[in-house]
Amino acid sequence: MLVTLREHPADADIISHQLLVRGGFIKRVTSGIYAYMPLMWRVLQKITHIIQEELNAKGCLETLLPQLHPAELWKQTGRWQGYTKGEGIMFNLKDRQGRELGLGPTHEEVITRIAGESIKSYKQLPVNIYQIQTKFRDEIRPRFGLMRSREFIMKDAYSFHSSEADLQSTYIEMNDAYEQIFTRCGIDTVKVDADSGAIGGAASQEFMVTADAGEDLILISSDGKYSANQEKADSIAKEGKELKEGSPEIIETKGQNTIELLCRDKFFEPDQVVKVILILAILEDGSKQPILASIRGDQELNEVKLLNCISKQVKQNVISIKPISKEDLKDVPFGSIGPDLEDSFLNEVSKWSQKFIRLTDRTAADLKLFICGSNKPDFHRIFFNWSMIGGPHQIVDIRKAQPGDLCIHDQEQTLIEKRGIEVGHIFQLGKKYSLALGASFTNEHGSQEPFWMGCYGIGVSRLAQAAVEQSHDESGIIWPINISPFQVIIVIANVEEETQRILGEKIYKDLQDKGLEVLIDDRKERAGVKFKDADLIGIPWRIVVGRDSSSGKVELIKRSNRSTTLLSCESATKMLLAEIFN
Amino acid sequence: MLVTLREHPADADIISHQLLVRGGFIKRVTSGIYAYMPLMWRVLQKITHIIQEELNAKGCLETLLPQLHPAELWKQTGRWQGYTKGEGIMFNLKDRQGRELGLGPTHEEVITRIAGESIKSYKQLPVNIYQIQTKFRDEIRPRFGLMRSREFIMKDAYSFHSSEADLQSTYIEMNDAYEQIFTRCGIDTVKVDADSGAIGGAASQEFMVTADAGEDLILISSDGKYSANQEKADSIAKEGKELKEGSPEIIETKGQNTIELLCRDKFFEPDQVVKVILILAILEDGSKQPILASIRGDQELNEVKLLNCISKQVKQNVISIKPISKEDLKDVPFGSIGPDLEDSFLNEVSKWSQKFIRLTDRTAADLKLFICGSNKPDFHRIFFNWSMIGGPHQIVDIRKAQPGDLCIHDQEQTLIEKRGIEVGHIFQLGKKYSLALGASFTNEHGSQEPFWMGCYGIGVSRLAQAAVEQSHDESGIIWPINISPFQVIIVIANVEEETQRILGEKIYKDLQDKGLEVLIDDRKERAGVKFKDADLIGIPWRIVVGRDSSSGKVELIKRSNRSTTLLSCESATKMLLAEIFN
Repeated sequence: MLVTLREHPADADIISHQLLVRGGFIKRVTSGIYAYMPLMWRVLQKITHIIQEELNAKGCLETLLPQLHPAELWKQTGRWQGYTKGEGIMFNLKDRQGRELGLGPTHEEVITRIAGESIKSYKQLPVNIYQIQTKFRDEIRPRFGLMRSREFIMKDAYSFHSSEADLQSTYIEMNDAYEQIFTRCGIDTVKVDADSGAIGGAASQEFMVTADAGEDLILISSDGKYSANQEKADSIAKEGKELKEGSPEIIETKGQNTIELLCRDKFFEPDQVVKVILILAILEDGSKQPILASIRGDQELNEVKLLNCISKQVKQNVISIKPISKEDLKDVPFGSIGPDLEDSFLNEVSKWSQKFIRLTDRTAADLKLFICGSNKPDFHRIFFNWSMIGGPHQIVDIRKAQPGDLCIHDQEQTLIEKRGIEVGHIFQLGKKYSLALGASFTNEHGSQEPFWMGCYGIGVSRLAQAAVEQSHDESGIIWPINISPFQVIIVIANVEEETQRILGEKIYKDLQDKGLEVLIDDRKERAGVKFKDADLIGIPWRIVVGRDSSSGKVELIKRSNRSTTLLSCESATKMLLAEIFN
Repeated sequence: MLVTLREHPADADIISHQLLVRGGFIKRVTSGIYAYMPLMWRVLQKITHIIQEELNAKGCLETLLPQLHPAELWKQTGRWQGYTKGEGIMFNLKDRQGRELGLGPTHEEVITRIAGESIKSYKQLPVNIYQIQTKFRDEIRPRFGLMRSREFIMKDAYSFHSSEADLQSTYIEMNDAYEQIFTRCGIDTVKVDADSGAIGGAASQEFMVTADAGEDLILISSDGKYSANQEKADSIAKEGKELKEGSPEIIETKGQNTIELLCRDKFFEPDQVVKVILILAILEDGSKQPILASIRGDQELNEVKLLNCISKQVKQNVISIKPISKEDLKDVPFGSIGPDLEDSFLNEVSKWSQKFIRLTDRTAADLKLFICGSNKPDFHRIFFNWSMIGGPHQIVDIRKAQPGDLCIHDQEQTLIEKRGIEVGHIFQLGKKYSLALGASFTNEHGSQEPFWMGCYGIGVSRLAQAAVEQSHDESGIIWPINISPFQVIIVIANVEEETQRILGEKIYKDLQDKGLEVLIDDRKERAGVKFKDADLIGIPWRIVVGRDSSSGKVELIKRSNRSTTLLSCESATKMLLAEIFN
C-alpha cells in the first residue's frame, strides 16, 4: 500500500511533517492524532527493537502498564489537579460508575504503586522497568505532526533503588544506553541540562536533536562544556552600564509607562532600571498568591524558574501563573510600580492572599543605583538604591538566560543559541513519588525506607520524525539505514518488459534470502513516477532494473548522495551486503 | 523481579486468574485494569510474534491506528449512540476544545476512512491491514482478570476488496491463519457460528477455547458438524405434547400468572402454551418501540436474535431492549396477555410508538391448538387456534437454542452444550462501513464502488489467560512451550554451595548461547520455595542443580508430567535442544 501525495499538505508547517504525510507514512485522523501507516510502523518497530536491545542489555525489564489511571493515585501525589485543571494536559473521563480516570501521559504513580506492592526487600533492588506505549496529552496547540501530537509513542522507564548512590549509577548507565540508542538510530543529539518540571526531582538531562524547527531553545557554551534548555539554563548577564552618581529624586514620566519609552525620553539604559512585574499564582489548594518580581530592565523572566521558585516558597504545587493586569487591580499604578509597592493594594481583591511574595532577581539586586517606579502614576524614582526602598527582598534566579550571556563555568565563554527537538529525558526523581505513595522496602537494617527513584523517557514517534527533520533533501526523506522501513528498494522501470520484471523479481528474492529487507516497486506507473516516489520515501539503497537488464545489469543508487553505479546484479548484491552488514 | 504470592487473591473467581495473579504475571491497578508484569509481557510478545508471522505470511500489513476516535466518525456509521449511551461500552470524553472523543473498542470507522482516502483503484486491492493494540471497553461487570477487562490487547485486521468473492477468499485465508496461530500458541479451539452483533455483516465465526469457566455457551452437534454460539445457534425445538382437541373456552386462572403455576394447577404442559412477552426497544433515533413477542411456553427468547430482528423491522440500530413491566403500563393484564393484546393499551404512554411490532416465534406459530392469555386479568383461553385470534403475526426465529434440541442439518443429531472463551472472531462485513463512510474505489469499469470489507479479531491478552485456563494443574500453570515466558528455568537448590552456583551459571550461559530462553532462580530461598514457584509460573522445562552437581549431574524435569531424569549437564542440554527445537 504505497500511497504518496504530490501536494504539500496544507496543515504541515515543517518539512519532516510534510514529507511523512506526502510519503504516506502517517495519516491525520483528527487534530494532533495520526495513524501510523505500514511504512511508518516499520520505522517505529526498528526504533523499538534498538531500544529493547539496549535496555535489556542494561538489565531493564519490559512490561506494559495500563493507559487508564484511577484518579485516586494521582491525587495521592498531588498531580491530579495540575494535570487535569491547570495546564490540563491529561485527558480524563468518568466511567459508568462515575469513577474518575485519566489517560496516562506518564506513569510514575502507577509503577510506584506496583513497585511498592511487589518489592519488599533491598535484596530485590535495584529494579528498572520500562514499557513502550502510546501516551496521551491534550495539547493546547497540537502541531508539527508527530512532534507535538495528542497521541504519541513513548518509551518510559522507572528505576527503584535502595540508595541515592545506586540511583546515580543507574542514571549514568541509562545515559550511556541513551547515547547508544540515538547513535544506532542514526540521529545526532546534544545533551542539555533540563528542568524537571511537573515530574519533579533532582538532576535531569534532555537529549536534543538539533534542528531549526525544534520547539526548544537550547543554550550551549562556546567551548561546548555547558549546554542547557533555556527553561533551565543558568548564566551571568552581561554587566550593564552603571548609572553615574546623582541625587535621588522623583521625576515625572508621563506617557513613559514602558522601559523602552522611559529610556528613550530620559536617556537611560534598560539595564539601569528595575522592572517590576506582578504575577498571580494559582496554587493547588485553590488559593491565589500574588507575586511581585523585580528584575533588571533588560532581562526577561524565566517562567519555569519562577514557577519552581514560587512552588518552593508556598511549599505546594503551583497550578499556573498569569500576569496581574489593570482589570484585576484597578488602583495599582501599572507602568510606575516600584519593588516596594504596598501590600494594601491587594485589598481590592479579598479572595487573594493579602501579602505579596516579593522576589528579586540577582540582576536587579546587584544594581547599586537604579531607576524604578515610584508607586504613583507617571512618576519614577531615579538614583535610588535598595536601602532607600527597604530591599532587595529575597534574591533569587528567575531570569531567562540569553544567547550572548557569560557562562558560569568560565566567564570567557558565552552562550550560543540552537534550536532542539527533545527526544529523550532522564531524571533523578529521588523520593518524591515513593514518599507520596508510601512505597517502601525493608533496608539492610530491617527498617522501612521509601525507594530512591529515577525515570527515563524517549519519544519514540517524535524521534522518528526528528530523524526526518535531520536527514532529508529537496526530493524527500533519507532514512538512516538502521531505522529505515526497508534497506533496499527495487524499482522495475517498466513492468511490461518481461526481462526487467523477471530480473527484478529474481533480485528481490535473492536479497530477501540473504537477509535484507527489500521493497519492490512493480507498479504499472511511469519510471519517473516511481523514481520520485523512491526518493520521497527515502529507502537508503535503490536498485533500478531498467534497459540494461537484458545484459543482466542494474543501477545501484545511494539515496543520500545519489552516487550511481551500473553493475551486474551479482555485484550489486555483493556490494549491498558489504555496505549494509559491513 | 520474580514475585509470587502464597494466597489466592480474593477477587479471582477462576483458576487462570488466580494463577496469573499468584505467579506475579499481572497486577490489578483498578477494576478491570491490569498491568502486564515482565513475565506476562514475554508471553504476550510471544503471541504477538506468532500472529505477526502468520499474518505477514498472508500478505497482511501491520499498522497502528489511534486509540482516540473523533465522535464524528462514529456518528457517520450510526454507532456513536449505541456505543456511548445504550450498552455504553465505549469510554468517551471531551477534549479541551469540547470535542467529543471515544476510546476505541474497535476500529472499523477509523480504518475505513483511511482506506477510502488512500485506496483509489481496484488495482490496489485487496489490502489487509492489522494492528496489535490496547483496546478499551467500559464493561458493566469487569471480571475474571484478563477475560473481561476494561483494557485489553487485541489484534484487529481489516480487509478491503473489490468483490464479494475476493472477500470470501480472504475470509478463508484468515480462517486458515487463525487455525495456524492457535495451534502454534498451543491452545485447543473450536470454531462456531456467531452473531455479528453491533459490528454488523454477513458471515462470522468465533474461535472458542473450551473451558468450564468460559462465559459463552456453545452448542455443538453430536456429529461435530455444526457448532454455534448460543446467541446465534439455530436448531429445531423438540416437538411438544400436542393438546388434545377440546372446545375453545375462557377459563378462570386466578393466582396462576406464570406458566409454571398455570400448568401445575390445570395439568397442561408448558409446550402447549403461547407465552407472550412485552419488550421495549430504544432505537437510535431516540424513539421507543414496544414489541409483543409470542413463543412456545417451554422456550426462551434469544435476545440477540430478537434485537437483530427488531433492527431489521425498524431499519435502524436498536440501542437497547428491556422488558415492559407493570410500572410502565398499569392497565395491561400481565400474566394473562394474549398475542392479540390491543394496541390501545399503549395509550397510557404517549411517548412510545402507539403500535406493537408483533413477532411470533416458529415454535408458537406451529401450535395447532394452544392455551394463551385472554387479555383480561386472571382469565386464559384454552383450545384456541391462531385463526381465532387473528394470528400468527410475522413468523420469525427469536428462540434460544438449547442443549438437547435437534440439529437443522440432521434431525438425528442433537445439540450438546459446552462452555467457551472467545479468543478469535472473523467477520464478513460486506459494505456496511464503506457505504456509511462513503469509502469507495474506481472499479474495472471506471465507476465508483464501495469496498467489500472483512474484519478479523484476536483477543491477545485473553488468549494468554485462556491458555492458562486450559493448561494448568494443582501446582500452577503449564505454559505451552511456544508462548511460555521462558523455555527453561534453572533452579539452583542452594546458592550458598559454590559447586551448585558455578554449575548452574555455566548451564545458564550454555543454554543461552545455544539460543534457548532461560530463567535462572538463584535467590537465597529454600529449595522447596523455589520449586513451588517454578511449578506456579509454569516454565515447561526445569533443570535443578542440586546435590549431584558435584558429579556434574542435574535433574531435568518436564513441568507437564513431572517426568524427572538425572543426567550429566551435557546430556541435559542435548536433550533440551532436541525437545525444544525438534
